[in-house]
Amino acid sequence: MTKSLRLAIAGLGTVGAGIVKIVQQHGDLLTARAGQPIEIVAVSARSRSKDRGVDLSGYAWEDDAVELARRDDVDVLIEVIGGEDGPAKAVVETALANGKHVVTANKALLAIHGQNLATLAEENHVALRFEAAVAGGIPIVKALTEGLAANKIERVMGVMNGTCNYILTVMEATGADYADVLRDAQELGYAESDPTVDVGGFDAAHKLSLLAATAFGTQVDFGGVKIEGIQRITLTDIKNAADMGFRIKLLGVASMNDDGLEQRMQPCLVPTNSPLGMLEGVSNMVIVEGDYVGQIVLQGPGAGEGPTASAVMGDVMDIARGLLIPVFGQPAVTLAKATRSNIGMDAEYYLRFSLADEAGVMAAISTTLGEHGVSINRMRQYNHDGDIAPVIILTHEVSRAQLDEALGVIAAMDTCLEKPIAIRIETV
Amino acid sequence: MTKSLRLAIAGLGTVGAGIVKIVQQHGDLLTARAGQPIEIVAVSARSRSKDRGVDLSGYAWEDDAVELARRDDVDVLIEVIGGEDGPAKAVVETALANGKHVVTANKALLAIHGQNLATLAEENHVALRFEAAVAGGIPIVKALTEGLAANKIERVMGVMNGTCNYILTVMEATGADYADVLRDAQELGYAESDPTVDVGGFDAAHKLSLLAATAFGTQVDFGGVKIEGIQRITLTDIKNAADMGFRIKLLGVASMNDDGLEQRMQPCLVPTNSPLGMLEGVSNMVIVEGDYVGQIVLQGPGAGEGPTASAVMGDVMDIARGLLIPVFGQPAVTLAKATRSNIGMDAEYYLRFSLADEAGVMAAISTTLGEHGVSINRMRQYNHDGDIAPVIILTHEVSRAQLDEALGVIAAMDTCLEKPIAIRIETV
Repeated sequence: MTKSLRLAIAGLGTVGAGIVKIVQQHGDLLTARAGQPIEIVAVSARSRSKDRGVDLSGYAWEDDAVELARRDDVDVLIEVIGGEDGPAKAVVETALANGKHVVTANKALLAIHGQNLATLAEENHVALRFEAAVAGGIPIVKALTEGLAANKIERVMGVMNGTCNYILTVMEATGADYADVLRDAQELGYAESDPTVDVGGFDAAHKLSLLAATAFGTQVDFGGVKIEGIQRITLTDIKNAADMGFRIKLLGVASMNDDGLEQRMQPCLVPTNSPLGMLEGVSNMVIVEGDYVGQIVLQGPGAGEGPTASAVMGDVMDIARGLLIPVFGQPAVTLAKATRSNIGMDAEYYLRFSLADEAGVMAAISTTLGEHGVSINRMRQYNHDGDIAPVIILTHEVSRAQLDEALGVIAAMDTCLEKPIAIRIETV
Repeated sequence: MTKSLRLAIAGLGTVGAGIVKIVQQHGDLLTARAGQPIEIVAVSARSRSKDRGVDLSGYAWEDDAVELARRDDVDVLIEVIGGEDGPAKAVVETALANGKHVVTANKALLAIHGQNLATLAEENHVALRFEAAVAGGIPIVKALTEGLAANKIERVMGVMNGTCNYILTVMEATGADYADVLRDAQELGYAESDPTVDVGGFDAAHKLSLLAATAFGTQVDFGGVKIEGIQRITLTDIKNAADMGFRIKLLGVASMNDDGLEQRMQPCLVPTNSPLGMLEGVSNMVIVEGDYVGQIVLQGPGAGEGPTASAVMGDVMDIARGLLIPVFGQPAVTLAKATRSNIGMDAEYYLRFSLADEAGVMAAISTTLGEHGVSINRMRQYNHDGDIAPVIILTHEVSRAQLDEALGVIAAMDTCLEKPIAIRIETV
């Protein structure tokens, strides 16, 4: 009889329960593919009595999750507690220090402590895997670190927060306002009661920082991500964008520029007919561009019990098969500290101004833009009620610094009634 | 100094040259990621004098590729000769028997001899990897065998021949006939002078048979793929399909039905606004449906020097990192001999009839369809010149057996002037 690979699960929320279901339902399949049986030996969660729809009677129970990481009968610790500090961090650190492999779905933990944890794992010659932390069921970490490992990665980008994509696509489809769609999303369980982590772009930025580290061989630098949420996107913007052949997505982009690593998580306009433009609902999409492979697009469910548990168990299968690669694709000690890019790449922008409906206002705007080197590609003024004239401008390529200077001057004009909106148009 | 992983390359066509470029250009990157240097030690091809745009002077040359597989200084044999028998087969068999890992881009070889070669590799405890054989640069074999390994796979499908997709999308975009577009594709190098392997569906069927084996744990059964090419697809069909919200794709579908494995490679209608419908040009797309993960879509370049070399080198990186999993994801000896499904799943169909323009003809068709349980969903008769009336019918779901029976009766009618066309509408 082959020895089993023995799992402990810290956290029995949706994902933890999904993992239990896979192990219980697919025992034969996992054994055939892994070359050894996979079994759960111990679990831990806050409440022992809660009904999670799965039979936990065959597993040891620990009230303190950290105790799981100390058990002699555990080979792999699965951390699905969540949170960047507290018990999740303690469990993971203890497991690694005790020579146990760790599989986690915790993007916040790795975005903040990734470098230290990777070092700890590699010092102890164990795996620390996090496929489930980025884009749910999509095997993107594996694609980047393994399948595309022979490429110099040029850009990695994507829609990595299902909540935001749901809100934006429902706003366009139904014509409902941001606040109303957010409320619906909360009722459906697609958004938290405090939605800031999602709609503010932080959750997606956690994920982007992990992808950037694996793509470019740099230390995780969550603090280096320029983050802008979707809270200021209005139905007007969505309709204007659609009119001109675009959709608005909360898009993460990481690229290695001449002066360092650029990481942005912000609303962007993408062509309606591009793969990103077509992405509906809570799906995720990640696009990787490598110097030999060209462009690879991966799409799938970005969250949920089944997809996240699938990703966790994919990592477990790798461990069972003896795959032991460095956490971010190359040894932690060789990961360079990221220099943050200041220049950014030039881009086209969508601008929305709310202007006083007076003679000469448009001329003043155009002149100011021109003086700062911002060249106008298309301009539209829509019908309006009252004294506020909404004006939309698509620019030609310009640096963000020049654009911001021009917008600063315009914002200070009496005839500019609201802070101008600028949304980048991303080339995909 | 860490020991190098030493490669031999059998075949120096486009892909072979691409592999040389990657190794020469990305030495440091590969070493950092693989944990050891990757070097080429020997190569072989038909002509030694041909200029391939790469410097081969540092490598030993063998006139006979099989000698590469016998060299003591080779760890990994890369086979990019092609062809299901002859030198490719001899090289791969010799390498495996001599305890060398093999990476191949050869779909025909594995589609025909996959089970024997997998057995040989596993008996000799070496890897036999074939990511480059399916969908070019898309890491789909890795996704199926590793990332999604915790799922019971329910269906795998996709567009896996860039030549066919190019022809079909250009026909729709330009309104040109099949024969004209095929000639252009041949001049552009997208199609062979004998295009049968591509347009007849055989190349894509090779790939589908490999995906089916990895997805369902069955022995490769290329002979079990129902193959239909795109040669009978007319501009009329493409326009009619577009009119009704569909595009025609050469689509491969493999699923495990109640009575066995179904493998089909045939033109299908897919919704214009689906990922498959949006796929343009020579790109490939593979869709995997797993019981926990749901639907994952992968898109990318399906052929060409860079993408194929990227896939080959991804496999080499796995070998360098010590990943050694069974060829088709579980030991060859455990792969079940596939029972071929006879029933097939019911589906909706697009039917095109060329009928004599006489009274009562339509009634006869409708009656015959109805008598065989083929229910009509939509019907269109287009303007026509002359005495032939083209009639398009979309059916409701029906079994292929019932449909074929009905079409056989109709084809025998004097008023049916051409053999009816039936194209499946695929649910995606």
